Amino acid sequence: MIGTPRRPVITLLTDYGLRDEFVGVLHGVIARICPDARIIDISHGIARQDIRAGAAVLAHALPYMPIGVHVAVVDPTVGHERRAVALSLRDGRMLVGPDNGLLWQAAVASGGVQQAVEISSSPWCLQPLAATFHGRDIFAPVAARLASGEPLERAGEPLDAALVVQLEEPSPRVDADGLLTSVTGIDGFGNVQLAAVAEHLVKIGAERGERLSVDAGADEPCSCTVARTFADVEHGALLLLEDASGKLALAVNHGSAATLLQLRTGAELRLQRAGQL
Amino acid sequence: MIGTPRRPVITLLTDYGLRDEFVGVLHGVIARICPDARIIDISHGIARQDIRAGAAVLAHALPYMPIGVHVAVVDPTVGHERRAVALSLRDGRMLVGPDNGLLWQAAVASGGVQQAVEISSSPWCLQPLAATFHGRDIFAPVAARLASGEPLERAGEPLDAALVVQLEEPSPRVDADGLLTSVTGIDGFGNVQLAAVAEHLVKIGAERGERLSVDAGADEPCSCTVARTFADVEHGALLLLEDASGKLALAVNHGSAATLLQLRTGAELRLQRAGQL
Amino acid sequence: MIGTPRRPVITLLTDYGLRDEFVGVLHGVIARICPDARIIDISHGIARQDIRAGAAVLAHALPYMPIGVHVAVVDPTVGHERRAVALSLRDGRMLVGPDNGLLWQAAVASGGVQQAVEISSSPWCLQPLAATFHGRDIFAPVAARLASGEPLERAGEPLDAALVVQLEEPSPRVDADGLLTSVTGIDGFGNVQLAAVAEHLVKIGAERGERLSVDAGADEPCSCTVARTFADVEHGALLLLEDASGKLALAVNHGSAATLLQLRTGAELRLQRAGQL
Repeated sequence: MIGTPRRPVITLLTDYGLRDEFVGVLHGVIARICPDARIIDISHGIARQDIRAGAAVLAHALPYMPIGVHVAVVDPTVGHERRAVALSLRDGRMLVGPDNGLLWQAAVASGGVQQAVEISSSPWCLQPLAATFHGRDIFAPVAARLASGEPLERAGEPLDAALVVQLEEPSPRVDADGLLTSVTGIDGFGNVQLAAVAEHLVKIGAERGERLSVDAGADEPCSCTVARTFADVEHGALLLLEDASGKLALAVNHGSAATLLQLRTGAELRLQRAGQL
Repeated sequence: MIGTPRRPVITLLTDYGLRDEFVGVLHGVIARICPDARIIDISHGIARQDIRAGAAVLAHALPYMPIGVHVAVVDPTVGHERRAVALSLRDGRMLVGPDNGLLWQAAVASGGVQQAVEISSSPWCLQPLAATFHGRDIFAPVAARLASGEPLERAGEPLDAALVVQLEEPSPRVDADGLLTSVTGIDGFGNVQLAAVAEHLVKIGAERGERLSVDAGADEPCSCTVARTFADVEHGALLLLEDASGKLALAVNHGSAATLLQLRTGAELRLQRAGQL
Repeated sequence: MIGTPRRPVITLLTDYGLRDEFVGVLHGVIARICPDARIIDISHGIARQDIRAGAAVLAHALPYMPIGVHVAVVDPTVGHERRAVALSLRDGRMLVGPDNGLLWQAAVASGGVQQAVEISSSPWCLQPLAATFHGRDIFAPVAARLASGEPLERAGEPLDAALVVQLEEPSPRVDADGLLTSVTGIDGFGNVQLAAVAEHLVKIGAERGERLSVDAGADEPCSCTVARTFADVEHGALLLLEDASGKLALAVNHGSAATLLQLRTGAELRLQRAGQL
């Protein structure tokens, strides 16, 4: 039942937002080159120029996407200093985007890079190539050609896969004072995703229903309840749950944990059991 | 000319917003299971957790959609206390979503429920089933299977259609002091949709061009003009018109009635003719 | 490789935003009439009722779209005073929308209008025709019929192409005091697009790397650097570059030029070389 899609699939993830025509132009460019492509917009709401947030969303979303060509563009140095690349991965997916670390976490989750090609001067680029819109002039046309079945080798110059820029997820740390971890993303509901996973809670001995201290550096530490879902706590209460990506997340039932805790992506925080305080 | 679409249609309505990857993940899950599906995003901008607003939008939009499988998710108690259901309706549509009243108004508008199935533990769910993202793990895969032609019976456990949670539209009331009604929704332009329809105006004897008093409980009552369209009144002026859903709505030409009147969904207000003041 | 798409293409550009169901309803109406259509959303984030901004985005985006039927709706006087039209253009595209100037710039860029039809009372309109939602009741169904291959003549009444409302782009002017131009649009990053193009810089003798004075009427003039891309200047610095539409634009690296300069669409400003100050 769950099989290979009959039409080629291209997914898009950017920080372009939906106010402007940028995303629509990507769709148009792809549809002109590969009219059969099904385009899936993973998200265009990545925080502007936040490579780390984009990398995390891409890696978490990809397993739910059909095998296809996956374009990602979060590109603070567009037109400068960084390669544009197309990568084939061991599970059959292809990634297209700037070589600034954005693609790494997803590549690893798909078994690693099989073949890498630098596409900064791809023969498939639209001309004239604008210095500020590589999504339109490089990434979309290259993705569309690949989705049409053209071979990766023709997309540009071969690149040693070992040279692809790597950006690892931050590592949570368990010590005598509890769990030290960092914020990997904040969603539109204000839920705060952490790098840590449920096993880290096990390591500090915390159990469902228990209250933990959350110390985000500023002011007084808050208290949260380890729970399964939002409705396990009262309206307005802070909870720690396993989110739908399998990560730990801080949330407020009918509220915003990001606002309550004044947290941003990359912020560090410490979770402690009451006995450790 | 207006016929059955050749590809199966799945429509989506949620309060997820478009900042995050949640909607993109629904598309991906559906495309993996039913690659032929045409997916139509009715709206993902329903006010967060506002079941009543979601129910009204779903019921108003559905007549404009091809017959298909219609997923709706506004789900304040996800992972708790409520069933997940799939319903077949008398006009051939199917609804999939939480059984919290969200689906009721649309079901009634489509002739009522023919067959109901509880899908909380559907064999078609993705595993592991996350407590916080039933859209991804229950509603999208069930909708995709149904769109692929699999029979509703196999989606889960049979459910007595009489047990489906009902949520009626609020009833406007006409009395000696005029028309008492409530706000069913506010759009992005600040237009305030009411539960009342044009016949209620007839009942209180109000005619086009006439000025009515609008009493929303706070401060001074405002005055509005009964009109056909925005441009019938001056810039900044308040009008009462029949909106595109056939409901009465308060609007400001080149402005926001919601801001002017400080109104929210569910608020009650009274409309009176000048002679009644 | 880059050929005619096999499925008919309909593109949409509106100021509806994505909070409400309006865009979803357009998709539904089209899918019911022309199930094969591929719909591309160019943008629904045009500033509300800003005809000039919509006209510029439509004209810039269209060359990147497959040939198709292109619907545009920015319509401050919906239900009043203006015709609804469908136009065939010399390059094979068709435009559908209100006849308020919105379509003109795109029509000119496509070689001009070949045939014009007034569709205000098109036999293809949905009935009853709402006074406030012509996108749903006129533009979407007419576009869908045209995309299905029905002839333009049947869409309504013939209209003299010379009567189509014209809205020219504002003309930049070079004089002894430098370059006088105006803001044609502001994107979601705060980049300020001007009517002027690179040749205007040549005319005032400005070169890459040079600093220019930007006088937007208020307060002190600012200083900007003529550059190729954002990363050519420091974080927070103002630059003047050729944008991806081939227009000059003011931008701030990692910031918003619109905020810095307090500019809005239509605002006039003067660019001067230091020697002219």
